[in-house]
Amino acid sequence: MSASTVDSADPVFRLHRGGKLAVTSTVPLTTREDLSLAYTPGVARVCEAIAADPVLVDDYTWVSHTVAVVTDGSAVLGLGNIGPRAALPVMEGKAVLFKQFADVDAVPICLDTQDVDEIVATVRALGPSFGGINLEDISAPRCFEVERQLDEALPIPVFHDDQHGTAIVVLAALRNAATLLHRKLGDLRVTVSGAGAAGIAVTRMLVAGGVDPEQVVVCDSRGIIGRHRSDLTETKAHLAGTTNAQGRRGDVTEALRGADVLIGVSGGRIDEAAVAGMAPGGIVFALANPTPEVDPAVAARYAAVVATGRSDHPNQINNVLAFPGVFRGALDARATRITDGMKVAAADAIAGVVAGSLSADAVVPSPLDPRVAPAVAAAVAGAARHDGVARA
Amino acid sequence: MSASTVDSADPVFRLHRGGKLAVTSTVPLTTREDLSLAYTPGVARVCEAIAADPVLVDDYTWVSHTVAVVTDGSAVLGLGNIGPRAALPVMEGKAVLFKQFADVDAVPICLDTQDVDEIVATVRALGPSFGGINLEDISAPRCFEVERQLDEALPIPVFHDDQHGTAIVVLAALRNAATLLHRKLGDLRVTVSGAGAAGIAVTRMLVAGGVDPEQVVVCDSRGIIGRHRSDLTETKAHLAGTTNAQGRRGDVTEALRGADVLIGVSGGRIDEAAVAGMAPGGIVFALANPTPEVDPAVAARYAAVVATGRSDHPNQINNVLAFPGVFRGALDARATRITDGMKVAAADAIAGVVAGSLSADAVVPSPLDPRVAPAVAAAVAGAARHDGVARA
Repeated sequence: MSASTVDSADPVFRLHRGGKLAVTSTVPLTTREDLSLAYTPGVARVCEAIAADPVLVDDYTWVSHTVAVVTDGSAVLGLGNIGPRAALPVMEGKAVLFKQFADVDAVPICLDTQDVDEIVATVRALGPSFGGINLEDISAPRCFEVERQLDEALPIPVFHDDQHGTAIVVLAALRNAATLLHRKLGDLRVTVSGAGAAGIAVTRMLVAGGVDPEQVVVCDSRGIIGRHRSDLTETKAHLAGTTNAQGRRGDVTEALRGADVLIGVSGGRIDEAAVAGMAPGGIVFALANPTPEVDPAVAARYAAVVATGRSDHPNQINNVLAFPGVFRGALDARATRITDGMKVAAADAIAGVVAGSLSADAVVPSPLDPRVAPAVAAAVAGAARHDGVARA
Repeated sequence: MSASTVDSADPVFRLHRGGKLAVTSTVPLTTREDLSLAYTPGVARVCEAIAADPVLVDDYTWVSHTVAVVTDGSAVLGLGNIGPRAALPVMEGKAVLFKQFADVDAVPICLDTQDVDEIVATVRALGPSFGGINLEDISAPRCFEVERQLDEALPIPVFHDDQHGTAIVVLAALRNAATLLHRKLGDLRVTVSGAGAAGIAVTRMLVAGGVDPEQVVVCDSRGIIGRHRSDLTETKAHLAGTTNAQGRRGDVTEALRGADVLIGVSGGRIDEAAVAGMAPGGIVFALANPTPEVDPAVAARYAAVVATGRSDHPNQINNVLAFPGVFRGALDARATRITDGMKVAAADAIAGVVAGSLSADAVVPSPLDPRVAPAVAAAVAGAARHDGVARA
């Protein structure tokens, strides 16, 4: 990585001085009486009550509204493996967003290990401290195993946002785009470019939302994933068995031939010629950050609906539309995990916020739209109860 | 432990609903511009700068003013091993005090393990997330090893408050009491009742502060610690080699015979007859919480200066006089550890706050005295620089 220095004229550095977070007390502490209630001896009575009935921790501590944002710094934004310290500003930003949009208290936890077993052991040990775990910026394929093991080990929601946050918003946008174009999800031929954390999760989420897996083609850096490939990780091998029923082979250009939908979650570039080979009037979501795989102006020559991850284009597909409300809803329901049903419900809620005012330039709400997180939270809490994972 | 239910009439439970903490953003987030600075794409520039120069994490994240309050719930107040969940209200209270007295942001971390190696591995992994580690309510003798290993492993201050916070305030109070009674610390015959976390640390701190170790006698539950004992842990065996030069043996009554000072950090009860055997006009600090080892009214029949840990008696020896300022000073100096010199400096600063107005009922400041934490912080930062462990 090229050397980087602090540009004192850059407002980003001024804003970041001292970080972006603080912990505040929510109880008074000015008199001896205050001290004797918030601390000793009064606090002992609360401890005794929880010791006798552990579920009371949800009522008398902050865990019921607090999540950890956990990273090992191995896949941060477009910067790659920059490690835990350099990742911290992103985690702090995540916490700011959690608070702003869903009044969820979030604590950045940046780990000094990238070993799956050590990450899992560490986060398991932290379990009693939080009401949920948001995994962030942990590279594939380790992220799948980390999430799987923690989901199994902990009685609180565990959610890797790079996987599912992206996937939820993509499903929401695709649902609305399909509606706009009078197409059914189940009829769409979908190509997913990228088989990392986001690509795997997007594929699963679209299928959970109604896309026909046999009509999905997923590409990694070596081309189309299918039964012809012998070099696949376990996760990709599973995709090879469930997608690409036609057994297509080749590169992304071949993958896009006749496709209705391109979901770009790979980074890199996709040639205009490849996009030109798509079925006309389709859907292109080019989500690489900061540089979309396809220039949206180019995509617009071939597709009817175009989205990116950028704030300076219409249809910004941004995880912030999902994760605050997802955790808010999960915490409100005291859910023990985040099920596929809860994720689909979140996607439907996001889509629903703009469903009455759809246009080619508005298939998702703005990330700053304050209606989104409450709608998502309500839907997710309802789905948690429906799925039998709610304790409240 | 007897079953405990929530007493809805008890104001402590009302106060604790929802816990006592929240995380807040310290940066604006209302416009797209705000989002692009606090989060993507602007935040990436801060990440790159830290990746190129890791020390910048102190300037551009919250670590430089944030500590973790870490427990395994094995020795909480007078309640014993109640586990991590039941311990959380105490840790939240600690965080409230850190903020109130020293503007230090503190995050409760309650661990689901009591294994020394697992605790150490977990907290090591958390290292990049915090500017300091306050260990709390971890039982002896595991706490000594946990602190020692973490102090060695982490480049940030690691401080077990039950050991050193208590010890610092005891030294401060003893210094002032000795001054009041026109005695020198080095001439005092000191008996420490209790050889757990607090007793061990108090003994070390008093010696660091000028008490003659040969004139110190330490008792555990089996009596005086000395070379005659064959059942000692490594920590206690070390004490046996450095204290009790007279080779005294027996129970606490024997230990107190002719003693000038009693430091009670054992819990339990010490008979009036034992206190009556002390040298007249001495010093009694009976610090068991909530019930002092000696009734202060009884102690006052024999001692010239009496202190307890209770807020309803004069001379409240309370760790809150120490830990906020100790961490504030360590963080201000960006100290890599908390040295004995820094602890003694803290004690001297605490003593100094009331040095001009000493009386038998005022050898320590009130725990709510706002002058204390800033004075302690300044002294500790200065000592950090003097001891060569400051990076700022």
